[in-house]
Amino acid sequence: MSVDGDDATPKRTAFFVSDGTCVTAETLGRSLLTQFEAVNFAQQSLRFVNTVERASEARRRINETAIYDGARPLIFSTLVKPDVQAAIKESNALFLDIFATFINPLEQELGCRSSVSTGRFHGLHNVDEYSSRIEAVDFTLNHDDGGTTRQLDEADVILIGISRSGKTPTCLYLSLQYGVRSANFPITEDDLEGPALPDSLVPHRDKLVALSTEADRLQQIREARYPNSRYASFAQCQFEVRQAEALYRKLRIPCLKTTLKSIEEIAANILDLVDLQRPSRSSRPKAHV
Amino acid sequence: MSVDGDDATPKRTAFFVSDGTCVTAETLGRSLLTQFEAVNFAQQSLRFVNTVERASEARRRINETAIYDGARPLIFSTLVKPDVQAAIKESNALFLDIFATFINPLEQELGCRSSVSTGRFHGLHNVDEYSSRIEAVDFTLNHDDGGTTRQLDEADVILIGISRSGKTPTCLYLSLQYGVRSANFPITEDDLEGPALPDSLVPHRDKLVALSTEADRLQQIREARYPNSRYASFAQCQFEVRQAEALYRKLRIPCLKTTLKSIEEIAANILDLVDLQRPSRSSRPKAHV
Repeated sequence: MSVDGDDATPKRTAFFVSDGTCVTAETLGRSLLTQFEAVNFAQQSLRFVNTVERASEARRRINETAIYDGARPLIFSTLVKPDVQAAIKESNALFLDIFATFINPLEQELGCRSSVSTGRFHGLHNVDEYSSRIEAVDFTLNHDDGGTTRQLDEADVILIGISRSGKTPTCLYLSLQYGVRSANFPITEDDLEGPALPDSLVPHRDKLVALSTEADRLQQIREARYPNSRYASFAQCQFEVRQAEALYRKLRIPCLKTTLKSIEEIAANILDLVDLQRPSRSSRPKAHV
Repeated sequence: MSVDGDDATPKRTAFFVSDGTCVTAETLGRSLLTQFEAVNFAQQSLRFVNTVERASEARRRINETAIYDGARPLIFSTLVKPDVQAAIKESNALFLDIFATFINPLEQELGCRSSVSTGRFHGLHNVDEYSSRIEAVDFTLNHDDGGTTRQLDEADVILIGISRSGKTPTCLYLSLQYGVRSANFPITEDDLEGPALPDSLVPHRDKLVALSTEADRLQQIREARYPNSRYASFAQCQFEVRQAEALYRKLRIPCLKTTLKSIEEIAANILDLVDLQRPSRSSRPKAHV
């Protein structure tokens, strides 16, 4: 209907609204939006909407967007304060109340009332969680790209792979998001000639997970960094991928193909593989609304 | 009721079940669980439940847990395949269907059907998103702790702060999670004596955000790394915090107190401060079920 769009597909705006970080509203909202491929969504996060003033400001923005888009926006909300929520609900938009929907059945099942708080989940118990994540990040940074071979026995998992196979971001995601002490170690041309595992990894074979990728994708990634180099040539990429995968097969090291996988998927695959579901370090669940 | 627990509070197990990474089920599930402080929750993620076989295996695990706990578990599910979902629904548990609840009102609002897919959101369009996050992580690692002052003009945000104020994990979270090119730069004792900004930061003042923390919390963190050092002494921590905050005030650099904040909250505060809501690099929403 609208004439001014630069795109033939209809445009709708989705607002993620929260009195906290918006992480929950963004995560669920985006998952739902991917189910509608025919619609072209714009997305905006409205964080820390914790006063009626901020809610009114947010409502203004939502209503302006409704006029601009020529279609009412979607609101994915984790708001819990009644007055703040009421102010947002008056917007010209579809309001989806992420929390309310599930709080009721949970209260019935658990036989107790929920503490409808305003995103204040961050008592002292979280200091431990914060510290364990920071420690995991420190560990990962110290053990990035084979930075040190000391304390590898303290690693929860050690990723190996040839250059640019995705080790570093995966390790960082595992440590930041899950508090998993993850190290990574490069498989170099020397290792591939054997082919053999670097000596320092031999005692830690049980913790190894290899990352690999298609040679043509690897070439693209390397080419972006070192154009026209031998390192980025297709022949070199193909050689390294083949040799490395043969090494992993020989040693029965689980190998994940990362091509077209997101960091979240690679990390989830690793958690699944090594079953890192250890008892949680704190009995309280953590959340970020 | 149960006698064998080591804790007086009742124990319940929450399962996050997904045919993908579990990120959505975990994120929403944990947010909801924090609303029930009276209950002691154990948490388990069942990822990549994408076949009836895996679903039957998951159901067995859930049913065993029900017997062990003496109370039926909670299931937070983002499953969409009917046969897989049916197999899980037969478990002795409270089944919460995260997707179905919202798909209906969204279909009505948008006037089109959803593609109930099985977590296969990862077409070619995601290669760009993956690359931009990897590039942001590379940028952050190169610009960690003042690693280089080159290309600071390409930074979206530059975090400054004294040692152990939380700069590195926050930068990594911003780059990994949001694709934000974040650099960080230490404020050293030399800078505090001035007090003045390091020369290399002066041209980039608009991009600076300072992190600070309470002196006693800082002392704990430093003490864990370098016990009984001058660096970790309360007097030193207090001096550095005071001087640094005076510097930020003088230069009108926004300063975030990170004490008792999670990495997600600090990152969200920064996004809120610098309004990094640029047009998204791709028109398709991204999600990780």
